[in-house]
Amino acid sequence: MNKDMVYLDNSAVTRIDEEVLKAMKPYFFDTYAVATSEFAYTMGIEAKDALEEARATIADSLNADTEELIFTSGATESNNLALKGVMYNQKEKGHLIISDIEDFSVLNSAKKLEKQGYEVSYISVDEKGKVNIEELKESVRDDTVLVSIQHANQEIGTVQNIKEIAEYLEDKDILFHTDATHTFKRIPIDTQEVPVDLITISAHTIHGPRGIGALYKRKGVKIEKIMDGGFQEDNLRAGLENIPSAVGFAKAVELITEEENEKIKSLRDTLIEKVEEQIEDVTLNGSREDRSPQNANITFHYVEGESITLHLDMRGFAVSTGSACFSKSLEASHVILGIGGDHERAHGSIRFTFSRYNTKEDVNKIVEAIKDVVENLREISPLGKKGSE
Amino acid sequence: MNKDMVYLDNSAVTRIDEEVLKAMKPYFFDTYAVATSEFAYTMGIEAKDALEEARATIADSLNADTEELIFTSGATESNNLALKGVMYNQKEKGHLIISDIEDFSVLNSAKKLEKQGYEVSYISVDEKGKVNIEELKESVRDDTVLVSIQHANQEIGTVQNIKEIAEYLEDKDILFHTDATHTFKRIPIDTQEVPVDLITISAHTIHGPRGIGALYKRKGVKIEKIMDGGFQEDNLRAGLENIPSAVGFAKAVELITEEENEKIKSLRDTLIEKVEEQIEDVTLNGSREDRSPQNANITFHYVEGESITLHLDMRGFAVSTGSACFSKSLEASHVILGIGGDHERAHGSIRFTFSRYNTKEDVNKIVEAIKDVVENLREISPLGKKGSE
Repeated sequence: MNKDMVYLDNSAVTRIDEEVLKAMKPYFFDTYAVATSEFAYTMGIEAKDALEEARATIADSLNADTEELIFTSGATESNNLALKGVMYNQKEKGHLIISDIEDFSVLNSAKKLEKQGYEVSYISVDEKGKVNIEELKESVRDDTVLVSIQHANQEIGTVQNIKEIAEYLEDKDILFHTDATHTFKRIPIDTQEVPVDLITISAHTIHGPRGIGALYKRKGVKIEKIMDGGFQEDNLRAGLENIPSAVGFAKAVELITEEENEKIKSLRDTLIEKVEEQIEDVTLNGSREDRSPQNANITFHYVEGESITLHLDMRGFAVSTGSACFSKSLEASHVILGIGGDHERAHGSIRFTFSRYNTKEDVNKIVEAIKDVVENLREISPLGKKGSE
Repeated sequence: MNKDMVYLDNSAVTRIDEEVLKAMKPYFFDTYAVATSEFAYTMGIEAKDALEEARATIADSLNADTEELIFTSGATESNNLALKGVMYNQKEKGHLIISDIEDFSVLNSAKKLEKQGYEVSYISVDEKGKVNIEELKESVRDDTVLVSIQHANQEIGTVQNIKEIAEYLEDKDILFHTDATHTFKRIPIDTQEVPVDLITISAHTIHGPRGIGALYKRKGVKIEKIMDGGFQEDNLRAGLENIPSAVGFAKAVELITEEENEKIKSLRDTLIEKVEEQIEDVTLNGSREDRSPQNANITFHYVEGESITLHLDMRGFAVSTGSACFSKSLEASHVILGIGGDHERAHGSIRFTFSRYNTKEDVNKIVEAIKDVVENLREISPLGKKGSE
């Protein structure tokens, strides 16, 4: 691969930090015990301690107690566990509410539950991707068990007002889950301030290892296990504890600073500003104000997103179209459609994801490249503005 | 931790090989794209290629096709996916058969299915841990969908005759799953020779990374997804692909040699021989002949296994009692009870797991230590032989 390439695509954040790997290493080679052997011998105790210390660090970043954090294999499993775990735990099949623009792991867990006889309501969002809270309130029923609304969107970065939603649901005695995969450590959630019951987080979005995530579960909230087997994770998630990755996850949490978040936000704003200034017929998808710091999502009208990514790749820039999952299917993004965009807008949308490793120079260079690429593509585009003029 | 410690406990095999980490590194720092971005830009293609190359290497070790391998987060998930995936895919709730001594991830997946309305038969094993094949044949019904019998036992190492079982079930048109977590790469399974439909394997038992496993699924076998979300893994397992770990898994597969398996087997045989020669009132649990090469499980009568592990720990040796999961619960092992052992035998049982990093000298030293520890403990034991004489 090309070392000079600039990564602003959705894998930008999956580059592991050197410090993370350094923290993991002792648990690959020295303290490699399984945590459940803890009272049998010394290394087992050390391994167990390392796991619990990692758990404490991560829980602390949500202002939560250590025992409120369940390690999983990632955000997908955490979302599956939150939705299915809560719904399966009900004696009667109940009602679930999610938004139209949730990540696939929430959306398709809900659809699976629907197939199994549960009822699901889907709440629409406005043109900025903000959940229609009045519609949410009207959808609440006597048998509503759980509401799952993401903290920020995976594609357009729109941040929901989870505090307002959580407080409303707390009064109604309805459980509230939020998928915070794309805001964790970027926009803090204080579980003492926000009465949310379940939170999905992941290491891979903050330069931690892949294959590990966690579910925050407020004390007292009952869920049924979906990964059956041994008694690990307080008997809520079976499987050999992944101690090296848990330690790496905790290190990734520690490495994120307020300054970094400010820097990333400023890079994002610079990109949006320059693109809007210098390129005609662009639409910023999502909310301008309530937006995750690392995300910019822009539709370049009259051109295909796929063509833009390919041309930018040849020039040394990696960006994404749609979500990671969509990039394969070539279907139009349900998120862009959800905010009222048509297929043309969905296909012309480009997602930029900013990471620890991006610089101001990257932004200046990519804006120049996009300008050039988009102009060239518009010249020859069959959707072309030219043609419509 | 103590670097001079000798590890023969169940974490012996979880020490990652330096070569494995070396193979993973480029995918942490250089080729860190998500595999689903493959047609958008160069690094995506390289990441996708690395994932598929790893898949091919692992599939090849089972003489299987690349597309027959599904990556999961580990053996626990693979077992959950095999059992639930097959049973959920049935239109009618059907019948499942497993053995009495399966790993918890199979046992508790079966129990979950039972709770959900499926029927499960549990097949007993003989005093060596061999599945009663006549009982298995008699348990087969018209609505039997799946049989799950492990390749080798997690605690006592007994190897089942999966070829005989697979061939019998193939004739009856019943699906057959085997949990090969504890034999993978130690006792080969050739999927062209053995008509098994699903095989669970894991990286953590062969000095690969934790948090990654796979399920072999023969072409044409239909399963329902249990991890809902994106379209990864041929739409059979959602979640961001863990490319670094997949690459590490493949490297771990490549590093296991026939010579190493012979060496491990010989260390195991030496330990068993010396213990039986030098210590009175011991019972080898499991089969002497049909046994996974890395496993020795011995009951030292009249003493508690927990006391032995603690005293051995103080002398610099790590061993296990029962399975990894049991070590926490202090319940008697269902495996030892399954082979007709009583609670005393279950609690006095010690499992030795041999790895790449053990030597002949380790074996000589540990035998001396055990001899001493067991003699001392028997002197003071409340279960004591002394008392009963």
